[in-house]
Amino acid sequence: MNVFLNLSTNLLFFLGDHTEILSTLFIIFLAAKLSAEVFERLKQPAVVGEILAGVLIGPSLLVLVKPTDLTKTLAEVGVILLLFTVGLEIKPKALFQVGSRALLVAVLGVIIPFFAGWLLLTLWGEPTIEGIFLGAAMVATSVGITARVLASLNVLNTQTSQIIMAAAVIDDILGLLVLSMVSSMAKGSVNYKELALSASLSIGFTLFMVFVGAKIVNKTRPTVEKLKIGNAFFIVGLTLCLGLSFLASYVGVAAIIGSFLAGMALSEFSEDTDLHHKSGAVMEFLLPFFLVGIGMQLELAVFKDPRVIILALLATLIAVITKLIGCGIAALPLGRKQALQIGMGMVPRGEVGIIVAQIGLGLGVMSNTLYGVVVFMAVATTLIAPPFLIVLFKETRNELAKEEEEIVDSDKTLSVME
Amino acid sequence: MNVFLNLSTNLLFFLGDHTEILSTLFIIFLAAKLSAEVFERLKQPAVVGEILAGVLIGPSLLVLVKPTDLTKTLAEVGVILLLFTVGLEIKPKALFQVGSRALLVAVLGVIIPFFAGWLLLTLWGEPTIEGIFLGAAMVATSVGITARVLASLNVLNTQTSQIIMAAAVIDDILGLLVLSMVSSMAKGSVNYKELALSASLSIGFTLFMVFVGAKIVNKTRPTVEKLKIGNAFFIVGLTLCLGLSFLASYVGVAAIIGSFLAGMALSEFSEDTDLHHKSGAVMEFLLPFFLVGIGMQLELAVFKDPRVIILALLATLIAVITKLIGCGIAALPLGRKQALQIGMGMVPRGEVGIIVAQIGLGLGVMSNTLYGVVVFMAVATTLIAPPFLIVLFKETRNELAKEEEEIVDSDKTLSVME
Repeated sequence: MNVFLNLSTNLLFFLGDHTEILSTLFIIFLAAKLSAEVFERLKQPAVVGEILAGVLIGPSLLVLVKPTDLTKTLAEVGVILLLFTVGLEIKPKALFQVGSRALLVAVLGVIIPFFAGWLLLTLWGEPTIEGIFLGAAMVATSVGITARVLASLNVLNTQTSQIIMAAAVIDDILGLLVLSMVSSMAKGSVNYKELALSASLSIGFTLFMVFVGAKIVNKTRPTVEKLKIGNAFFIVGLTLCLGLSFLASYVGVAAIIGSFLAGMALSEFSEDTDLHHKSGAVMEFLLPFFLVGIGMQLELAVFKDPRVIILALLATLIAVITKLIGCGIAALPLGRKQALQIGMGMVPRGEVGIIVAQIGLGLGVMSNTLYGVVVFMAVATTLIAPPFLIVLFKETRNELAKEEEEIVDSDKTLSVME
Repeated sequence: MNVFLNLSTNLLFFLGDHTEILSTLFIIFLAAKLSAEVFERLKQPAVVGEILAGVLIGPSLLVLVKPTDLTKTLAEVGVILLLFTVGLEIKPKALFQVGSRALLVAVLGVIIPFFAGWLLLTLWGEPTIEGIFLGAAMVATSVGITARVLASLNVLNTQTSQIIMAAAVIDDILGLLVLSMVSSMAKGSVNYKELALSASLSIGFTLFMVFVGAKIVNKTRPTVEKLKIGNAFFIVGLTLCLGLSFLASYVGVAAIIGSFLAGMALSEFSEDTDLHHKSGAVMEFLLPFFLVGIGMQLELAVFKDPRVIILALLATLIAVITKLIGCGIAALPLGRKQALQIGMGMVPRGEVGIIVAQIGLGLGVMSNTLYGVVVFMAVATTLIAPPFLIVLFKETRNELAKEEEEIVDSDKTLSVME
């Protein structure tokens, strides 16, 4: 065997890390799906299983794989496609009907966590700048996890889900502004002109897509139907998805906001084509890289000091409670149950919180320990929300299933009467 | 705008080359599909359009994108999925029925191009070691292009296609041995023990998968049906595809041989599940990165010297003719038309020829000029084969379509008679 390994190493030397890349892809996919299967059997959310698979095989524990540029890109494309398929199920009309409520949910869900995070670190005795960075990291909701759970429960078409999705879009824009502001403060001066420009670009892009995007897309339908390439609707859909993800990223908001808006603009296309089915297949292939990727970020090494563990647990607790309270209060007029559903839907911080922490680390205003704390908070909130969401949406789901049954029944009655 | 670019650059600095990666993905996908559409309208093969899109946007001409580790990995996963979906349409039985003919096709298709390439460079006045490297680069067929064309023509289930696929698998193993041998010669000594081990491992792996793979997979069917995760057949299929690609690459053959064998082992699963449909969607998303990736490799800068242009054209001509003759003679007992189809199917060298050239470059036995010549030959052969394949298979395709019509007709007659 030694001889073979020699040859293999020689070829490996020539071919680059070709075999290693394939082994990484295989290990991540296999671990994610084995873990999802175990969690499904335990009647727990598969999404939590896949994130925990990342913790298990990542640098913290087994060190079978580590985050690389490649795994990060696959993760990014995976969550881009997830939000794209979610967008395909939501009509722009549904979204701007809940606009003002969603705006309130987003604003309160940004202000309360921000100041709570800042306060926590101040009471902990850390400098102001670290405090506002923890606050900023607590602001941004990572809607991917919630969207995945809502889609798997088949409740994307409820008013609650629509408020969550709309609030997540607004939340991302607000998060961008908070991040720009605290980054400028860390560098010593805030450029209000830059801030205003950044704000108007991201808001303009979003409003344009919500109000005009679908109309433009629907007008292109005859052209798409005349295309000679195979799978024209799917190909056009993917192109728009990639294009708007890039554009969103270019104007400063998250790429997933672009793909979500692309999906929404195409929602009428997806009703009678296989666009949704095919995009779903691509998403199923890539999403494990996103979920495992979140788990891989966790670094358990900083938690040797019990004080750090306490801070991480406190930060997580505050991250959960402040979103529940902030978004919940804003949604309270819709009833206590819906308020809880919306609040819990906004809890996961995921990759967005981690990006903020990376910026703080890069600017030298955040210690390695605090970085570890933020990553723990980000990963923990993505693990906490799904089981609660499933419980909170159980009744809604049953009601929807019952309604559908009744529709089917009345259809049957009709066809018998005919 | 300047102010905004400033902010955007600052954020870009933090977030890495995130936006740049998305723009690369978007540009590649858009260029590939626009070009495919133009080629379809000109009644030319879409696959040629996508490769030429790569030449156009790549380093040779517009320099909009350049090959990176990321684009190469996406390309690799794309062609892995292509061969996987092709495998899903071919039963192992069909493959070993044509085994001995395919063996002859592969052997003659390796020997003749190898010696012709060597002879060409010797007559050109180059050293022996460069000659045998050009020979080695002329050996390996890149079956991806042919498979894509055959699948788009719906002729994968003909004996001709099966011989091509089987011969490509054997060709790859022979190519590995030739490459190991010439690499050892370049380094000064051939280790026959290593060679024998490498040969037995790759042959053993292939035979095991062809003869036993499908049987094992079919036995797992009740287990797969009992899985709780969604899309179980698709997920299990992707896992096997990634696993065997890794394993193939580990034992030294091309990863696509592994994914092809995985697909074949799953061919019975794909008959009554959506495995083929869903894998096809993932492949459609990733394949443009493979095709554009081939075109991007082309470096036109070395062709300032007319002598180099002549050598490149000669190498391409010889690459085409020797495969046509080598594989054609072996297939001649099946008739002249089938012999031509099989010969032309083995013409594309694509990424495999380029890998051999890269190894030669890495070992310092191949000049930059000769590297450019090999890449030209590899890209040119992938562009030449598809139009000829379409013409050569036109009749076969019409016959198949007619047969199917007759079956449908007789079905109709039967149902009317009932």
